[in-house]
Amino acid sequence: MSKKLTTREDNYSNWYNELVGKADLAEHSEVRGCMVIKPHGFAIWEKMQRSLDDMFKETGHVNAYFPIFIPKSYFSKEASHVEGFAKECAVVTHYRLKTDPETGEVVVDETAKLEEELIVRPTSETIIWNTYKGWIQSYRDLPILVNQWANVVRWEMRTRLFLRTAEFLWQEGHTAHATKQEAISEAEQMLDVYATFAEEWMAMPVIKGVKTESERFAGALDTYCIEALMQDGKALQAGTSHFLGQNFAKAFDVKYVNKEGKEEYVWATSWGVSTRLIGGLIMTHSDDNGLVLPPKLAPIQVAIVPIYRSMEQLEQLQDKLKPLVAELKKRKISVVFDDDDNRKPGWKFAEYEMKGVPIRLAMGPRDLENNTIELARRDTLEKTNVSFENVADTVEGLLETIQSDMLAKARAYRDSNMHNADTWEEFTDIIANKGGFVSAHWDGTSETEEQIKQKTKATIRCIPLENKKESGKCILTGNPSEQRVLFAKAY
Amino acid sequence: MSKKLTTREDNYSNWYNELVGKADLAEHSEVRGCMVIKPHGFAIWEKMQRSLDDMFKETGHVNAYFPIFIPKSYFSKEASHVEGFAKECAVVTHYRLKTDPETGEVVVDETAKLEEELIVRPTSETIIWNTYKGWIQSYRDLPILVNQWANVVRWEMRTRLFLRTAEFLWQEGHTAHATKQEAISEAEQMLDVYATFAEEWMAMPVIKGVKTESERFAGALDTYCIEALMQDGKALQAGTSHFLGQNFAKAFDVKYVNKEGKEEYVWATSWGVSTRLIGGLIMTHSDDNGLVLPPKLAPIQVAIVPIYRSMEQLEQLQDKLKPLVAELKKRKISVVFDDDDNRKPGWKFAEYEMKGVPIRLAMGPRDLENNTIELARRDTLEKTNVSFENVADTVEGLLETIQSDMLAKARAYRDSNMHNADTWEEFTDIIANKGGFVSAHWDGTSETEEQIKQKTKATIRCIPLENKKESGKCILTGNPSEQRVLFAKAY
Repeated sequence: MSKKLTTREDNYSNWYNELVGKADLAEHSEVRGCMVIKPHGFAIWEKMQRSLDDMFKETGHVNAYFPIFIPKSYFSKEASHVEGFAKECAVVTHYRLKTDPETGEVVVDETAKLEEELIVRPTSETIIWNTYKGWIQSYRDLPILVNQWANVVRWEMRTRLFLRTAEFLWQEGHTAHATKQEAISEAEQMLDVYATFAEEWMAMPVIKGVKTESERFAGALDTYCIEALMQDGKALQAGTSHFLGQNFAKAFDVKYVNKEGKEEYVWATSWGVSTRLIGGLIMTHSDDNGLVLPPKLAPIQVAIVPIYRSMEQLEQLQDKLKPLVAELKKRKISVVFDDDDNRKPGWKFAEYEMKGVPIRLAMGPRDLENNTIELARRDTLEKTNVSFENVADTVEGLLETIQSDMLAKARAYRDSNMHNADTWEEFTDIIANKGGFVSAHWDGTSETEEQIKQKTKATIRCIPLENKKESGKCILTGNPSEQRVLFAKAY
Repeated sequence: MSKKLTTREDNYSNWYNELVGKADLAEHSEVRGCMVIKPHGFAIWEKMQRSLDDMFKETGHVNAYFPIFIPKSYFSKEASHVEGFAKECAVVTHYRLKTDPETGEVVVDETAKLEEELIVRPTSETIIWNTYKGWIQSYRDLPILVNQWANVVRWEMRTRLFLRTAEFLWQEGHTAHATKQEAISEAEQMLDVYATFAEEWMAMPVIKGVKTESERFAGALDTYCIEALMQDGKALQAGTSHFLGQNFAKAFDVKYVNKEGKEEYVWATSWGVSTRLIGGLIMTHSDDNGLVLPPKLAPIQVAIVPIYRSMEQLEQLQDKLKPLVAELKKRKISVVFDDDDNRKPGWKFAEYEMKGVPIRLAMGPRDLENNTIELARRDTLEKTNVSFENVADTVEGLLETIQSDMLAKARAYRDSNMHNADTWEEFTDIIANKGGFVSAHWDGTSETEEQIKQKTKATIRCIPLENKKESGKCILTGNPSEQRVLFAKAY
């Protein structure tokens, strides 16, 4: 298998697809729209899970697990929710197969038809709020701060590995609160957790904002989001946190008795990020040689390759390098010592480069003589010869440097692709020719938003939380506007 | 809600169901056969997952993720596999809902019918071996040592929380090997991992064995298992590891080129444990007061309750106890300091007892004067006053003691319920009146095995791996037998 990728300039979409395959991250399964997450891809997801889960627990959340199936009738209870998800539901109608006695073929047993169809969860608000009804009686039972790690299914017709698949993995937090303000604070807190995770772990800068009405989650009063910018100038919605008001409490009749003895409906939030983050991670950092991973999420942080012509040389290198491997492991650095004799060093270099290993060390007989080692940075592709003395310190420090350099580089890219547009001409020119985020005035109506989308394919990604009020005129209609919003073409 | 449970003697089954509810482990959902795993139950599962996952990785395995849907035709490819699972398959037939324009009801959109039905995975051999076909060409691609943590669905008609549910969580390892011997060694190794986990983490002694032909996994040549004994004298199959031979490789045409350049079919194993283990954990240790947890799997290992009449006393106790909390946390001991003023100490004691917290510490003004603290062991219900000096050491040591005492107690129970039977009368008497494992001769035929099951409800749990050869006569037919096998009624 050739290790060469189509370049990003030649065909960004092919580059992405080839990289996902060649870096052993994922592949399409034969099941429509469903992916196989391969070991290297899954190892990244595990690192994401572990660090997010720690952050959820630090903010007082616990995990639980709810059924994968949702009775069809539950969906109907929240009107906008069913409207949002009905078109992409996988429906279970039967519970048994049988062998056809005539043809010998395995067929659905028509006598085993469900009375009520079950939906494979596209999201779990309905089944969870139906459960919370039994958990909540008094203010003493609140808040409920529960998260679930799960698979969900949305029958997408056009899929792309990680970015949009029929089945994906995610976490979904579902919290219940006594007051509106507490629920809003929770939704905002979780948005901050996501933003911190994106920046500190993924080295992916994000803009925090709130969605317009037409881009809101089906059933939410407000959808907060983090938006990132990919290398092709398109935006990626990387996580959302919803203030659900009392919509689901009303749909499922979930009330609590407050301290004054009065019954009230419970306030809700939900929030989630998914394996889509891996798509964002790839498109924020990777290059034409393959994956580039920030050290904090790299399953392998350091690869060490001995270069030798004789078994005697190999043994000398093993003697020299194995203590280094042990030392790095002691420092909780994930390291591979690759002395596999079946593969040549060049093959190994290309392999670790493709897989995004942040630091590669190589040592040959000459290095052994000089007490040096070759160190290659994946993010900058720089190679240097460094002293073997204190190389563990060098590596440990460099991993931190790479992590922060990658964030700085991604932030510089994002900032240099953040444009203001004050006229329709400016706006359409940037969207069509430059890409990136465009900050522009909008008259606040869904009609205008839809027209802009029809004309340019750009959508309002968010109203940034840190927006300043500023009087202006809508770029399309010229109607008055009080603030700029953020447009982009998006995944 | 009353904290009192039905006693085990009165009604073992009610005791179990009530405990699962009152200890906040799980509950039935409104979706037939599917459970909600509540936070305390899920926290135990997380601890199990973490330690098992570490053991899998230490033995060279990596995680991946495969689709939840399996095309119906895949099942047909391995004849005994489809026969084993066809009767309990949830079948997806449609991919869209719509609102009926006349009634306004949400209904299945009949125009969105799948060409081929999809099965919600009951186990993943077929979809995984269909994927492995693309991963394996040469001996260099072997072995593949992959595990997946996932939800699976088997449409059980009679369900019990944790023990038998339509949807459950599990891990399934699926490995591919160049040789038969390597695959058998892998299946045996993973059985050892399960046995080690059961004994060292769950404090649940198990017997390692191999299943008879009629109890084998659908598609396996050999099914290894670990069998535990519950307090009601019934056995529980706690984990299985299958040597699958070349069955799935042949069904999905997965061949590799060996070092000599010849094509051969690949050898396979699969192995799994599930949330059923939580049922086993409950029924191995718990008592009429509630859950008893081994310290290594307890989400909360130590609960500290201050006893006070005035706020001044509470403050004194907080000053005294908070450094202890910090010290225990420093030692990686999971501790709750419960100074919630809304609940009385008696309520808290009952709560932590029900939830199986291994050690409860309580301190009142008198203890403060004497510089002592009351220490209660959950497993033995013993209370002692210990010196506050070095109490962290006392607690840390006691957690280890409790862990080993619980295993010793469970082993003593199991051993005292291990009977030999040499005649049909002896056999039926023990099965009907005493319960436990019965070691007896069997003539080796499936017919006899089935007759014994029909007459007594006892099944052959396994042929123990450490069995000694011994000539004898089958307890039912009197035909010659060369070894004893292990019978029991089972969950």
